[in-house]
Amino acid sequence: MKENSSYKTLAEIINSSHNILLFPHINIDGDAMGSSVAMCIALRNMGKEAYILLEDEISDNLLFLDDGYVTRDQNIISNPDLTICIDCGETSRFPKRADKFFTGKVTMCIDHHGTSEGIADYNIIEPDAAATGELVYGLLKVMDIEFNKEISNSLFTSITMDTGNFQYANTTSKSHQIVAALYKHGLESNKVSINIYENNSWAKIQTEAIVLAGTEFVLDGKIAIAKVTADILKKTGCKMNETESIVTILRSISGVEIAALVKEDGQKKTRVSLRSKKYANVAKTAVALGGGGHVKAAGCTIDKNIDEAAEIIKKELIKEIKRHNGN
Amino acid sequence: MKENSSYKTLAEIINSSHNILLFPHINIDGDAMGSSVAMCIALRNMGKEAYILLEDEISDNLLFLDDGYVTRDQNIISNPDLTICIDCGETSRFPKRADKFFTGKVTMCIDHHGTSEGIADYNIIEPDAAATGELVYGLLKVMDIEFNKEISNSLFTSITMDTGNFQYANTTSKSHQIVAALYKHGLESNKVSINIYENNSWAKIQTEAIVLAGTEFVLDGKIAIAKVTADILKKTGCKMNETESIVTILRSISGVEIAALVKEDGQKKTRVSLRSKKYANVAKTAVALGGGGHVKAAGCTIDKNIDEAAEIIKKELIKEIKRHNGN
Repeated sequence: MKENSSYKTLAEIINSSHNILLFPHINIDGDAMGSSVAMCIALRNMGKEAYILLEDEISDNLLFLDDGYVTRDQNIISNPDLTICIDCGETSRFPKRADKFFTGKVTMCIDHHGTSEGIADYNIIEPDAAATGELVYGLLKVMDIEFNKEISNSLFTSITMDTGNFQYANTTSKSHQIVAALYKHGLESNKVSINIYENNSWAKIQTEAIVLAGTEFVLDGKIAIAKVTADILKKTGCKMNETESIVTILRSISGVEIAALVKEDGQKKTRVSLRSKKYANVAKTAVALGGGGHVKAAGCTIDKNIDEAAEIIKKELIKEIKRHNGN
Repeated sequence: MKENSSYKTLAEIINSSHNILLFPHINIDGDAMGSSVAMCIALRNMGKEAYILLEDEISDNLLFLDDGYVTRDQNIISNPDLTICIDCGETSRFPKRADKFFTGKVTMCIDHHGTSEGIADYNIIEPDAAATGELVYGLLKVMDIEFNKEISNSLFTSITMDTGNFQYANTTSKSHQIVAALYKHGLESNKVSINIYENNSWAKIQTEAIVLAGTEFVLDGKIAIAKVTADILKKTGCKMNETESIVTILRSISGVEIAALVKEDGQKKTRVSLRSKKYANVAKTAVALGGGGHVKAAGCTIDKNIDEAAEIIKKELIKEIKRHNGN
């Protein structure tokens, strides 16, 4: 991996660029969205022309952050002075926008994933940061940006979602210090939290109940696997991207070390979300199956039907548990 | 209400007391438990004889904090120099221990509930604090206590649970500043969070699914009411005190302003937990029915069977919603 550039270098390049496109990853999550929106607001407040370029949909609970920042029009800026990939550092995380990314006269990457490849001219990749939002906070400070309510709400979204509300092992004193500071700039943490977490469709709640009822426990309950089938979604009217939280509920069950949520995304396409609790490394399993992620939260896509994919993942997870517990 | 004493006054009284009993409220929650344990550790480290006196059970997910601090033996200290009620300030919140509380040569109250009555000789009641844990943190600082891992984990439990993981409207910059500081004293936030939140019995998860499936929506979904019956608990093997989180899930449904969880606790005894999202005041409803709590989180007990109680609560909640929205 390339050596990181300094925050000061990035600040100088941003300062001298006029047209800027931001590239968060596909299946945009709170960290990618919050970081990108905070950056976009800051850039526009500096007088730049800036957009967040997407290739897919935003889940309903993050839409409140988009106040005209997001576009899917790759021609909105034809020759960007600067392109920045945010919360991702591999082209597989923005596949349909990869060519556009490299049209940037200068390219930049701001990311906290250990799998980030240093693909840009200038990279800040800090795997120890709980969220990319923490890096954007640091960069905006160096850029001497005036923080406001919207930037604060965006960065809070970023940090609270990627730390699992300050519960995950990635959370540090710094995460809390940043949020403490955001309150001084107008952070509306309750309003943001209601938007993010208290906006569940009844269809989602019903789906959770049905999917959880079908949970399969393996190895004395150390592994919990549940399936989101197309039939269930059809019955409840729930969208696939509303089912992600089920894997967290699965992991919350006493004795479960690894939770797997297996989602039918076509006859021969199954998405898998993996979470571990204390000692297992699900990034290892995900990478072995062509995916990626963090030690305790990872995912992959398997080109098999849901039942076949569930069997494959089960075997891999048994191996991962046995690696720690012996046979 | 009596005027608050100063932290310095409390510190001096504690300093000159030797035998001290702590009185958290019945149905002990994370804040009451975390605050009491932190205080008990600090007192013992000062060489005091100190215990947390309880009259009922501790839910499984908080047991990890008790390292020999809790007793139910009212005779463990016969003539306490000092008694402190923590996270409560009305004798109805420690009914079977109220007489014992007043045997203290000096009595003290540390609480953040607006309903706290100032019953003690010395009171620190701060309704603007997110958690009593924040007050105990402040007091321990004034007492110049050396913080350690156990105190930090206890106070984190307190603050994270009473702020709904830093999501509720009571959360302030100070809540985050305190937690940021606790990391410097060895806080194990992930370990604590796993203990608190990822220790759910499978019976609990099944019960949630069954109870949620029976949700009744009133006033175009502004009110959601669900019932935990004795039959459901018998079927799943779930304990009553494991069902509290259901009310939070109910509130998280899009469009729901008030969530009510109605729990069968006997043929003529129904417990009610209320939560509001944005504008409704459920403390008002709870107080009208003989209970209490905060604006967005309150509760009461109704001496009726579960179906009758549900009807009573429904009528009251409709009134509360209409008070805001007109007829």
